[in-house]
Amino acid sequence: MTPTTAITLASRPKGQPTADNFRLTTFETAQPGPGQFLVRVIWLSLDPYMRGRMDDAKSYAAPVEIGGIMEGGAVGEVIASQNDDFPVGAIVTGQFGWTTHALTDGEGVRRVNPDLAPISTALGVLGMPGITAWVGLNDILAAQPGETVVVSAATGAVGSLAAQLAKAKGCRVIGVAGGPDKCAFAVEQLGLDACLDHRAHDVAGLAGAIKDAAPDGVDCYFENVGGKTLEAVLTRMNTHGRIALCGMIAWYSGQGIADAAPLPLVWRHVLTRRLKVQGFIIFDHFDRFPAFLTDVAPMVADGRVRYRETVADGITAAPEAFLDLLKGGNFGKQLVRIGADPS
Amino acid sequence: MTPTTAITLASRPKGQPTADNFRLTTFETAQPGPGQFLVRVIWLSLDPYMRGRMDDAKSYAAPVEIGGIMEGGAVGEVIASQNDDFPVGAIVTGQFGWTTHALTDGEGVRRVNPDLAPISTALGVLGMPGITAWVGLNDILAAQPGETVVVSAATGAVGSLAAQLAKAKGCRVIGVAGGPDKCAFAVEQLGLDACLDHRAHDVAGLAGAIKDAAPDGVDCYFENVGGKTLEAVLTRMNTHGRIALCGMIAWYSGQGIADAAPLPLVWRHVLTRRLKVQGFIIFDHFDRFPAFLTDVAPMVADGRVRYRETVADGITAAPEAFLDLLKGGNFGKQLVRIGADPS
Repeated sequence: MTPTTAITLASRPKGQPTADNFRLTTFETAQPGPGQFLVRVIWLSLDPYMRGRMDDAKSYAAPVEIGGIMEGGAVGEVIASQNDDFPVGAIVTGQFGWTTHALTDGEGVRRVNPDLAPISTALGVLGMPGITAWVGLNDILAAQPGETVVVSAATGAVGSLAAQLAKAKGCRVIGVAGGPDKCAFAVEQLGLDACLDHRAHDVAGLAGAIKDAAPDGVDCYFENVGGKTLEAVLTRMNTHGRIALCGMIAWYSGQGIADAAPLPLVWRHVLTRRLKVQGFIIFDHFDRFPAFLTDVAPMVADGRVRYRETVADGITAAPEAFLDLLKGGNFGKQLVRIGADPS
Repeated sequence: MTPTTAITLASRPKGQPTADNFRLTTFETAQPGPGQFLVRVIWLSLDPYMRGRMDDAKSYAAPVEIGGIMEGGAVGEVIASQNDDFPVGAIVTGQFGWTTHALTDGEGVRRVNPDLAPISTALGVLGMPGITAWVGLNDILAAQPGETVVVSAATGAVGSLAAQLAKAKGCRVIGVAGGPDKCAFAVEQLGLDACLDHRAHDVAGLAGAIKDAAPDGVDCYFENVGGKTLEAVLTRMNTHGRIALCGMIAWYSGQGIADAAPLPLVWRHVLTRRLKVQGFIIFDHFDRFPAFLTDVAPMVADGRVRYRETVADGITAAPEAFLDLLKGGNFGKQLVRIGADPS
């Protein structure tokens, strides 16, 4: 038996979650049976989609049950095994949850090559956020050289890669981010052509700033956020523009919905400018993982693609770090260091 | 010189247009110069898009000027010509406007084969509404046999063809129309699997009726209308569903916008169900006209495709007929008989 600490869902949030919605719990995890292995979690990923799992609403994935361990991707080390594909010492990634240890039969678990890059990147630039950016830009938007691409949450785990990949393709790339520090990072470190601070503008101001930064209009919009960024970008979309919709964090907790633009105004833009709006969920596209890794891993290894992480320490820090993420308090990929990283 | 009667735009409407926005005017049209020809208009088409041309707002096409002749597609006969491609006696279609006679150099004018079908069909099932239905169903929605397709305004000029083409493809087709007579026509004459009366339901009621008629959900939505039909269909869309957006008549005059669903609720459906929403304007797809005519003209000729027309008599009747169209008072393609049809 292995002493285990985990974070469970104590109650469903009404609007913005609070620390009271989470509970720290300890229990014993059994030793692996045939085909199973035990993982010591090293890195836990925090992602906006987890907000949806806290609600009871019908969505593309089942909610976390009350009293259940919070769902989450993680990287860990196999410390006991009765599964030959995942021997002791292997570094693995899977949906282990907000926990220090997990027993698994290997379904949905993937081995991580620690020689490729720091193993934490399997949760960020070389993991789920990374492939989301890559599929969204290449398969959904099909951004072409010379086109203008706007990326919201441009310093986040998804946005920062989408923006850099678009630059590497020869696009003009305008980021939108929260605050002057993130905007400076986007331009100076990520190499974007411009980055606009949505906190400094209302919708009309943001639309004007986009017009200045993208005088020829916007061909592709990588949409992570919703809210006023969406409203502002819509007014600047070019005919036959494309919008890849993979998140709407601005509205995840119900805030801002009453103030949002009425649907007809948006629908009018989609109609008259012949836009294509496509929602996508990365789980549908995991068959693209090998192609993604082949393309992006060398760019991470040689520094053509940069990434940034915000690290919280210890499983007890996870709830506050998650609440901060929902408010945009993270800078780059939000991780929780659960245990020592041997790499 | 040829005495001519036309309808001009007297003033821009605020909200719903009224008869006061139109003015009857008479003038003399000159004889054709070199390369020109004179058309005696026989049939005038009335279409929802004309509402947009009455506003000064930026859109995909320029507005009609105050005092200018109302824009509109028409079919007529060449009665004087200095253009060998369009000799006297030829039947032609073009954007001649709300007028009894038009002088043209032939740009955007197409000859109509009167042996193919009644010449009025060049404005309906074999004209712009027809190709809109055909492109929307085949190119934008790419509806597949066995899929469930919902068509709004299902007895209108566009919707009635889209619905019949979907049936011919082997789709399950649910129409939405205004009133029991239109719904009965859609099922009994057009062969739809079901037709729902949007006037008999609120959004929740309509969503429930769609659920009953399409228990496996909706794969494709041909969107002509907006308003509560859109809101109801969205709740029933299947994962990876497609929405072809080519009109939003419910909102053309600004009514209902304040009551419409807030954008985030719609955006959530697009995201979690991975929908593709694509706006299209048929002017971008006129290169498909020969393929459309080859496909659909035989179906009209042998009765596999049925169509229905509502005819107003005389150019003075055009404004009231147009106002009625905006309220859904027409039944099938709305035409105005401007002059005698020799065919």
